[in-house]
Amino acid sequence: VEGEDAEALDALLDPLHPADIADLLEQIDPRDRKALLTLWKGGLDGDILSELDDNLREQIIADLAPADLVAAVRELETDDVVDIVEDLEPVQQRAILAGLSPADRVAVEKALAYPEYSAGRMMQTEVVRMPEDWTVGQAIDFMRASPGQLPDQFYHVILVDPRMRPKGYVQLGRLLSSKREVRLADILEDSFRTFGVEDEQGAVAYAFNQYHLISAPVVDADERLVGVITIDDAMEALDEEHEEDILRLAGVGGESELSDSVRETTRQRFPWLAVNLVTAILASGVISLFEDVIAGLVALAVLMPIVASMGGNAGTQSLTVAVRAIATRDLTGSNVWRVIRREVAVGLVNGLIFALVMGAIGWAWFGAPMLGVVIAAAMVINLVVAGLAGTAIPVILEKLKVDPALASGAFVTTVTDVVGFFAFLGLAALILL
Amino acid sequence: VEGEDAEALDALLDPLHPADIADLLEQIDPRDRKALLTLWKGGLDGDILSELDDNLREQIIADLAPADLVAAVRELETDDVVDIVEDLEPVQQRAILAGLSPADRVAVEKALAYPEYSAGRMMQTEVVRMPEDWTVGQAIDFMRASPGQLPDQFYHVILVDPRMRPKGYVQLGRLLSSKREVRLADILEDSFRTFGVEDEQGAVAYAFNQYHLISAPVVDADERLVGVITIDDAMEALDEEHEEDILRLAGVGGESELSDSVRETTRQRFPWLAVNLVTAILASGVISLFEDVIAGLVALAVLMPIVASMGGNAGTQSLTVAVRAIATRDLTGSNVWRVIRREVAVGLVNGLIFALVMGAIGWAWFGAPMLGVVIAAAMVINLVVAGLAGTAIPVILEKLKVDPALASGAFVTTVTDVVGFFAFLGLAALILL
Repeated sequence: VEGEDAEALDALLDPLHPADIADLLEQIDPRDRKALLTLWKGGLDGDILSELDDNLREQIIADLAPADLVAAVRELETDDVVDIVEDLEPVQQRAILAGLSPADRVAVEKALAYPEYSAGRMMQTEVVRMPEDWTVGQAIDFMRASPGQLPDQFYHVILVDPRMRPKGYVQLGRLLSSKREVRLADILEDSFRTFGVEDEQGAVAYAFNQYHLISAPVVDADERLVGVITIDDAMEALDEEHEEDILRLAGVGGESELSDSVRETTRQRFPWLAVNLVTAILASGVISLFEDVIAGLVALAVLMPIVASMGGNAGTQSLTVAVRAIATRDLTGSNVWRVIRREVAVGLVNGLIFALVMGAIGWAWFGAPMLGVVIAAAMVINLVVAGLAGTAIPVILEKLKVDPALASGAFVTTVTDVVGFFAFLGLAALILL
Repeated sequence: VEGEDAEALDALLDPLHPADIADLLEQIDPRDRKALLTLWKGGLDGDILSELDDNLREQIIADLAPADLVAAVRELETDDVVDIVEDLEPVQQRAILAGLSPADRVAVEKALAYPEYSAGRMMQTEVVRMPEDWTVGQAIDFMRASPGQLPDQFYHVILVDPRMRPKGYVQLGRLLSSKREVRLADILEDSFRTFGVEDEQGAVAYAFNQYHLISAPVVDADERLVGVITIDDAMEALDEEHEEDILRLAGVGGESELSDSVRETTRQRFPWLAVNLVTAILASGVISLFEDVIAGLVALAVLMPIVASMGGNAGTQSLTVAVRAIATRDLTGSNVWRVIRREVAVGLVNGLIFALVMGAIGWAWFGAPMLGVVIAAAMVINLVVAGLAGTAIPVILEKLKVDPALASGAFVTTVTDVVGFFAFLGLAALILL
């Protein structure tokens, strides 16, 4: 592709969707990327910019001429401009803002004043609003008279009272299928929800998914309409929140991107590994209490990781289910005890099954029946503790306002390692020596 | 709440959204649930049924009188009926189908003929379609003339040719802001994508998110329009796919629900624990090769879990990033080598840092400098291998058409356990004895 052939490149990239071009830019080599961008001048528009990963976007914007950048950004809706501008250096921010129309600039500046990941940042300020007493005919005439000023995409007409407070909304489909003299107030949607500008994006995404919303008005502290969030933004937010949860559960910073450098990636991975080192040392401390026991029977050293590993896995299963259920608000005060009881019961049943299997293996492997008994008993204890800790720890962290996805893993595996080694080696000391 | 007071209950539940009532039913005790449903006759409608978890829905439907069930289901759109019917026993299925209007019955039966998790199951058959040569005026007159026959929610009018093949669509907002004499063909949306009935729901959800679609036509094998998928269904599918990925990464069956019984939950968790037992025994086999070495220096038994645990965690980090990147199609043939190089480099850097730290701790703890050297070297080796295995294993599984989210974890931790124990104990045997 990189044969310096600008025309062939144009022909290749032009039919692609901006999102696909952005993906392409993310996936190719940094050197190829630079060559492509130099060759493919002018092709880079605002839509592509808003689809790029944050880090890469910053790099590319730094290489763009300010005039090109402003031209690229100008055609976007305010919520997309906010997306691009929010992560830039102040100098670049000012350059872009200066290039916008005064109305857009004010809207973007306002949005930037809201906290990150809030409804205020997600919304677009282009809304279609009408007085409560209008009829279908008035609504259609109004929209026909102002084609250039309507947003690119909208699905509802929002009715507001004289103080600009939203009172309900009408679906465009209803509007189109109703007679001209019908009053808008008579064809409102049943369910109507507004968000506050400071509402968190996760809560907004949850509500869209839970209540099947398509768009929803956003109001300021005085309950006045300031913007609208559409479902595509909510879907993106849902995707982001999920991604963050998965990565956090695995001990990776939630902001990780495939186009990040080695240095950034190392920095993202380091903290969790450091925490894990501390917990692993703690578990080793437990083992060192039993050095004499191990010296007396080296088979213990061979078998002990099995108990810890099974506990760790069972704990991670319970933990993941609990973290997800907290995120989707399925795990609440009313069922937490039932879920904990269930997880402990599951740990007990699986513990008993694996105790039998592992007891038999331990006996057969080392020819010592009592060794089988020890590992079987330790297995039951550790799987029950895993079910308990895997559910209780995320619930407690949530109560303490710590993100359970981020912190539960370290705690749960510490518990299962410590309990696993202690139960196995402690029982061995009691029974075998 | 359960004071047998039917009126108070009505007053309490009536203002709630069906999704919230479904959540409430899921969270309360089975006994309370039964009491509530007996008391709250008639309140349970189709909207609530379609919001329930699959397992619970089946239980509740089994308790409902067939006539009530049919009444509840009748008012739903076909895609929601399909959702409810697909998991039922054949007897219940037939009862519901018999109660539907003939047109709906045919639509539901057709949808059930498509594979599960396909676009054909997701779509609703209620579509608004028009000939290509109509004008805005004709479109509006048509819709006004058929208010009862339009779907509850729709956002686009789909233009079809005489053979019913979709040719493009018009946003309702565009329709409303255009003059009556404008031809629909002149105000089509730029980007227009159709899905085949057999397309997978994950691919559909991905495309909606990637291309910011709001609705999209579904065509059969002859390219004829058979239905439409709306973004709320795509958002739900995205949510489902994410949930499944998270749970699979943790070794829990993707279908797990908080309302599942102990028995079901045990069955879901068991397979992964069984796999883990096999891999843990494999790792123990490696340790048993070095029993003499451990007998000579018990400190090795104390320190060896640290190396394995750090490798396991680093491997899980790389693995999760790779699995996610494969799912979002960010990791492709064009950048797989670059990502692997990056992960190995990150493993090397973090490995060197933790080698220094752990080497010093090992030396200080046991007063043996060479023990520090051994653990440091094993740490570097295992973290590099973790980066390599964590990325390469999911990529290879994907190539072999095995779901990387499901199977990678077991392979990666086996590799890091085996390599960790082997490197540490092997180096110890070489250097210390």
